[in-house]
This record gives sequence, C-alpha cells and structure tokens, in this order.
Amino acid sequence: MIPEVSSLQRRDLNHVWHPCSQMKDYEDFPPIVVKNGKGIYLYDENGKQYLDAVSSWWVNLFGHANERISTALTNQSFLLEHVIFANFTHEPAILLAEKLANISPKGLSKVFFADNGSSAIEIALKMSFQYHMQKNKPDKKRFLALTDAYHGETLGALSVGGVSLYNEVFQPLLLDTVRAVGPDCFRCPFNEMPESCSTPCISYVEEKLKLHHEELSAIIIEPLIQAAAGMKMYPLSYLKKLKELCLQYDVHLIADEIAVGFGRTGTMFACEQAGITPDFMCLSKGLTGGYLPLSAVLTTEDVYQAFYDDYESMKAFLHSHSYTGNPLACRVALEVLQIFEEESTLDEIKEKSAYMNEQASHLFKDQPYIGEYRQTGMVGAIELVRNKATKEPFPGEERIGYKIYRLALEKGLLLRPLGSILYFMPPYVITKAEIKAMIDITNEVIQEYFETVQLNQEVFEYEK
Amino acid sequence: MIPEVSSLQRRDLNHVWHPCSQMKDYEDFPPIVVKNGKGIYLYDENGKQYLDAVSSWWVNLFGHANERISTALTNQSFLLEHVIFANFTHEPAILLAEKLANISPKGLSKVFFADNGSSAIEIALKMSFQYHMQKNKPDKKRFLALTDAYHGETLGALSVGGVSLYNEVFQPLLLDTVRAVGPDCFRCPFNEMPESCSTPCISYVEEKLKLHHEELSAIIIEPLIQAAAGMKMYPLSYLKKLKELCLQYDVHLIADEIAVGFGRTGTMFACEQAGITPDFMCLSKGLTGGYLPLSAVLTTEDVYQAFYDDYESMKAFLHSHSYTGNPLACRVALEVLQIFEEESTLDEIKEKSAYMNEQASHLFKDQPYIGEYRQTGMVGAIELVRNKATKEPFPGEERIGYKIYRLALEKGLLLRPLGSILYFMPPYVITKAEIKAMIDITNEVIQEYFETVQLNQEVFEYEK
Repeated sequence: MIPEVSSLQRRDLNHVWHPCSQMKDYEDFPPIVVKNGKGIYLYDENGKQYLDAVSSWWVNLFGHANERISTALTNQSFLLEHVIFANFTHEPAILLAEKLANISPKGLSKVFFADNGSSAIEIALKMSFQYHMQKNKPDKKRFLALTDAYHGETLGALSVGGVSLYNEVFQPLLLDTVRAVGPDCFRCPFNEMPESCSTPCISYVEEKLKLHHEELSAIIIEPLIQAAAGMKMYPLSYLKKLKELCLQYDVHLIADEIAVGFGRTGTMFACEQAGITPDFMCLSKGLTGGYLPLSAVLTTEDVYQAFYDDYESMKAFLHSHSYTGNPLACRVALEVLQIFEEESTLDEIKEKSAYMNEQASHLFKDQPYIGEYRQTGMVGAIELVRNKATKEPFPGEERIGYKIYRLALEKGLLLRPLGSILYFMPPYVITKAEIKAMIDITNEVIQEYFETVQLNQEVFEYEK
Repeated sequence: MIPEVSSLQRRDLNHVWHPCSQMKDYEDFPPIVVKNGKGIYLYDENGKQYLDAVSSWWVNLFGHANERISTALTNQSFLLEHVIFANFTHEPAILLAEKLANISPKGLSKVFFADNGSSAIEIALKMSFQYHMQKNKPDKKRFLALTDAYHGETLGALSVGGVSLYNEVFQPLLLDTVRAVGPDCFRCPFNEMPESCSTPCISYVEEKLKLHHEELSAIIIEPLIQAAAGMKMYPLSYLKKLKELCLQYDVHLIADEIAVGFGRTGTMFACEQAGITPDFMCLSKGLTGGYLPLSAVLTTEDVYQAFYDDYESMKAFLHSHSYTGNPLACRVALEVLQIFEEESTLDEIKEKSAYMNEQASHLFKDQPYIGEYRQTGMVGAIELVRNKATKEPFPGEERIGYKIYRLALEKGLLLRPLGSILYFMPPYVITKAEIKAMIDITNEVIQEYFETVQLNQEVFEYEK
C-alpha cells in the first residue's frame, strides 16, 4: 500500500537521494519532513514531535536550535564567515586548537582541521604513512584494523572499516588492510566476565603485529565502543595493552574518537579512561554540538617534527579542503567547549548516565528477547537475540531493528537501531523524566513487536 | 631573520597545523590573523586590508560576511540546525535539490549530498563502480583521469588526481588509475590555435579508451579549466568529443565542477557550454557562496534506478556522513542560488569578465616574463615563463609564485599563485575599479619582482 505523501515529501522523492538508504523503502515509508527542532525534540511538518534518542547520528550534544550556539554562530557570520587557511588564520581556529590541545590526552599538541570524520581518518592514515616514509621506513605502508571496525566511507576510511555491509561491494577499490578480531564482550570467546576480564582477546592483535609489524604504519581503533558495529563495548585494559603493543612494535595508534569523543563515554575523551595518548586522535560529530561539519586530527610534536623542514625537502604534509578551519564551524565548536566548562556537562553526564543505567538495566534485564543491556557513559545498547540462552542473533533479513524503528517513530521516538541492536545516545540536555520516557517507549515497542510477531506466528502455525 | 609575531600568531604556531603548507615557512612568514571580512576584502588584526583575489580558495561568490546570506543562516540556526538525513528530510535540502536539478544540465535529476569536494568525488567514483557491478560488468573497476588532474585529497580522490606534488609520496596507497595526457593549449603539441583548434589531443584519451574501456568505470575531468594544474584552459569541443567517446565506449563521465561551477566559467556550469550532460556532476566550493562546507553529486535517473530495488537485493548505495544534507549549509546554498536569480549574477559576470579580460590582456600582452594571459569567465591566469619565445617555464625550486605572493600581500593583495601561474578568481561582487586595482597591483609586483631579480643577477655577475 502506497501511503499518502505531502507535497514536500513528493518533491523530496523526486530529487533527493538519501544516505544509508534503499530508496525503494521510502515508497511505503516516505521521509519525515522536519520543520524545526528544540532541545531533544524534532517536529515534523504536521507538528508531530519526535524525541531524538540518537542525537541525529550521534552529533547533537546540547539540543536542537540551541540559543547559545545559534547566537555565537550568528555573531561570527556577520564578522568573518570564512578565509583561506593556508598562510592565514583567525581567532576561532586558534582558540579552538588551543583548547583541544589542552583538554586532550597529554602530548597531543598539534591540530589539523578538516570537514568530516572520513576526511579526518584519511588525514591520520596519510600522516602516519608519510611519517614512516620520511623516517626511512618505506615498508610501513599497511594499516591494521579490527574485524568489525567502522571509520567512515571515503575509500581510505572504508579500507580500514570492517563492517561488510558498507564495504563488501567496494573491495576491489580498497587497501589491503590487516584485520584482527576485535573484542566481543557479549559473546566472549574466552568466557571472561567484564569485572574480572584480563583481555585475552588482545592476543588476536598481538599475533597480527608479530607477523606484520614491519609493514604496519598504524593500528586504528574506536576506543571503548565500536559504535557502528552495534555499540560493542570493551574494557579500558584493552586500550592500555594496545598502546603498549604499538610502542613495542613501532606502530602508530590512531584513536577514532569521532563517535565516542566529547563526553559520550563519560569522560571528555575515551582514551582518557585508559590513560593513554594515541599518536593521532580523530574528532568530529560532537565537536560542533551537532551544528556543522568540522573535524580535527590531533597529533604529537614527534609527528609534526617529521614534516617540519626546509621547503626544498618536500616533506610538507599536503592535504587541504577548501573549508579547512572554517571560522563558522570553529566558532560553534568553541561555544560547545565553553558550555562543557561553564555548565559542568561532564558532571551532568555522570548523573544522567547513572540514572539511565539504573532504569534501563532494571527494565531490560529479564526479558526474553533481550540478550543484554549494556552502557558506557551516555551510550546504552539493547542487544536483541532470538535465543537468550545461546545468544543466537536474529538474522539480518528479518530487519527487526528497522521494524522496531518504524514502530518507535509512530510513538514519537527516533531510535534508528543498528541491525538488531537498539541504542540510546541522547543529547546531554535530556532530563531524567525524558530518559525514563525514552526507555519506557522503547520497552513498549519491543513488547509490541514481539507480541505481533508471536501472534502472526500462531496464526501461521494454525493455518498450516 | 625571525619576524616579530603577535600573541595570536604565536598561539597559532603553537597548535595549528595549516593545510597545504610547509610549516617551517611560517617561521619567517607567520600566518596572517584575519579579524573580519567585508565584500571582497579581508582585514587582519592590525586593520590591514587585503583584496581577496582568489575568493579564499575559490569559494566566495558574493563577498565576505554577506548580510543577506548571514541573515538566512541566522534564521535557519534558530529553527533547525541539523537532523539525521536518513529517513528524515527538511525544506532547505528539498528546495536545494530541486533547484540544483532545475539549473543543471538536462537529465541530472537526482542529488546526493556530502560535506566537501573530496567526498563528492569519492561518492561519484563509488556510485559509478557499484553501478557497473550491479549491471553485471564487474570488470569495470578502474578510472581514467588526465595527467595533471586535481580532484581532492582523500585517497580515492587523490588516486584520480595527477598533480604529483599532492600524490607522489602516497602512490603505494592509491588506486591504479589509467592516465591520459590532457589538453595543453599554451604548449600545444599539435601547434593548434584556440580559434581554429580541432582538439586533436582528444586522441590521447581515445587511445586509452580503446585499450582499457572494458575495465573502465568512468572518466573524470574538470570541465573547461584544469584549475590546480595551473588554470589550464581548453575549448568546449574537447568536452563534446569526450562525451561522445564515453557513450561509444560505455564509460561514465564524471564532471568535477567543484572549482568551475556556479558561474566561474561564465555560465552556471561549465558543461552547459558544451551542451553535454555528464553521468555525474560534483559540486562544492561556490555552492554555499564560500560560507560552509557542503557538496553535492548530481546524477541521472538511469544511475538512480540501478540502485533502486527491494532491500533484500542489497543494491542500496551505502555512503553517509553524519552531516549529510546539513540544513544550515543547504539554507545558505539556497540563498546563494536566489541571489544568482534575483541579481542577474550571470549577466554581471559577463560584463565584469569582459572588462577584466580587456584590461589584463592589454597590460600583460607584451611583457617579457609573461608567456600568456588567458581567461575563461571570471578566471584569469598569467603564466610566467623564463623565456617567452620557447615558453620555457621557471623551475619549481625558484618558488617564483610564492615570492610574488608575498610581495602582493605586502601591497594588500591576496593572490596565492599555483607554481609560476598567477591567477584572478575574485568574488563576483568585485567592481570594475577593484578589478583594475587588482590587475594593476599584480602588474606592479611582477615588475618589482623581476627588477629585483635582475638587479641581484647583475650584482651577482659583477661580483663574479
């Protein structure tokens, strides 16, 4: 049945090709036309309200159409919207770089700007590679990544990604990445328990390092949460060991904090919890509080110096995007960091995430199709399983996440699961009452979904 | 001699790693701290004025801190700053996609958004490749590009680039691109004259197509001007022939209009002049009038349909960036296109570019070190040569462009040459008087440079 579409929906379908979408799905589920946003809510063209539980792809921190951030953006736009960033600079970029260097793990003193997460990953890969070339280690031209990593979708970033959904078809275009099995705490092959885990799974990486370290430029990883893999969470001891191995084998560590940075894991950056300094840290998403595309690669003085030489040496790092260091985006990012400071956001996250954990753990613990509720900071995930005892997953074809997503949208909740993993990653301005509502609606739609399925199966059995 | 630096300059140098720069150069030429902009001018922290003759890396169209655009941005920021663009949409993106489809070459009806030019190129490459995979032509997995092409710096985009300055060191990470010698009208190997040229140089592409068409997915090209190659301009007949060859050999044509789109060549898009519709057209830079990072890939119904199928077919094009379809950037882009319409910008460009051509051609024609002044639309280029008769270029080590750039900055003109090619690509709001000033200052600094060089050489000869 083809649903009725509004004029704007029809015009959208005529010309817009949406990301991460099979456009044919839009035939019976046309795109929701959002008119405005306020705080954690989005409002569609009919005035229907949606609680944005995924912070619009994990970017929003302080709510939609935030007065303070919009004011900062406005002021900057009437002063200086943009200027070429080679040989030129401006206060917003300078203050932002300074602040990022101050709040990030010790030793990350240099900041290279770009426009999106993928570009930041590409920059880190290229810098690591060129560093080794200039240190007379030309064999170091491969990268190691985890089996279910996600680092973006430009070809370099996609090459280190391991989620086959995104890169399988593009294999002939991708770099030959060394792949190591990553941590999988829900289905731990070593049967470890989080409380007492000694991270034996680091051995998968270690084996690959032993074999390949001479040709490896860098290891890339999402610290603490492998997000697109299905919000897979792992202990900080894994990161500590990884850093040690990188030092031992002379391989750079690239920390992709695009999804997990800016308070998501409970601290400003996830690496902080493990007390490690990566060689490169990639930031984006929350960097502008969900306003504008901007990314940054932070690196060390050691890396910087390997490129610092007379012009004739041709050692410069040549990578640029037209809008590198865009003053509007930098000014917005500065405001975001000021909010963190002035409103003690990290303390707020601590309190709210404890509450979310309490409520969700309690509610989801003993339910038949929920294999686990797990949480790190302000990221909570529900892993749906077909069989709780064996942890057997639902097959992808069932599109269970997609179906629950649509049920939730009907009830005004924007969830957007990853396969059969539902997750919460709300803006930090969410209140406790709203956290409770978000969890309760999620619970309702899960119940509703399985009741319908069960009912349908009974009918099916009966008809047979 | 280390120059005195301001507090902001020192803080910049402590933490900012600038793009497209050997940072050691900044020791005796610290970054200029821009405080504000207005129209075609930038103002540094001491109030010094710079005429932005390169539109801040070719992005600005209607002047810095444009009232009208800043107002549109402001209004949008208090309404809806961003929303996830999968299954969701909003008016600014819908109207922008519609408008882009309306003003672009006939047949380009679908619009896929991204954040920067490089990402747009990656999308076009990936779409072209996946299209052929889904049409059961899995051998079509290589791309053809011109020898001195530039298409961006993420690894996929860099792979099709041919300017060795940017990609030589990264060769081991790049795709094996088929490379054809491009048009070179200034040093034409066929001794053709622009007026009567029959573009015999298309044979270079044709030869490669004959050899490789079965494994070729797409040809990528910058229509009419190979910008980063040194503003190399070529006739539209080349594009016509190229399009015919693409049809003949079943290879997609990707038009990279990132630098040349939005009126730069005198028409809204360069492809228009040749009357061709590419399979993919990549846009960015001027799309937001120099305000914000945004890009778009326009493509055909034929391409769209090759991905349009039931979900289970797994034919969807999966490529996303968090800020895809950002409402702030889309709203700004809409305003830019409205200005084009309401202020008859294309007519204005016609008039101003004719004036610029008249003034510059006259002034630069008979000068000893100027091999050629060439112009297409609002892009004018001066090719400096060591020997006017033989067209012998200056060696790169002399950094002649860089030296002239610094002289021009002293006089308040932001030129930023490409090697020994100086060029003008000013915002369209430049007046005739300002065009004249820009040309005159450029002439002055060229004279000054060569007089100093000559003087130094005489002293050198004398001392010998």
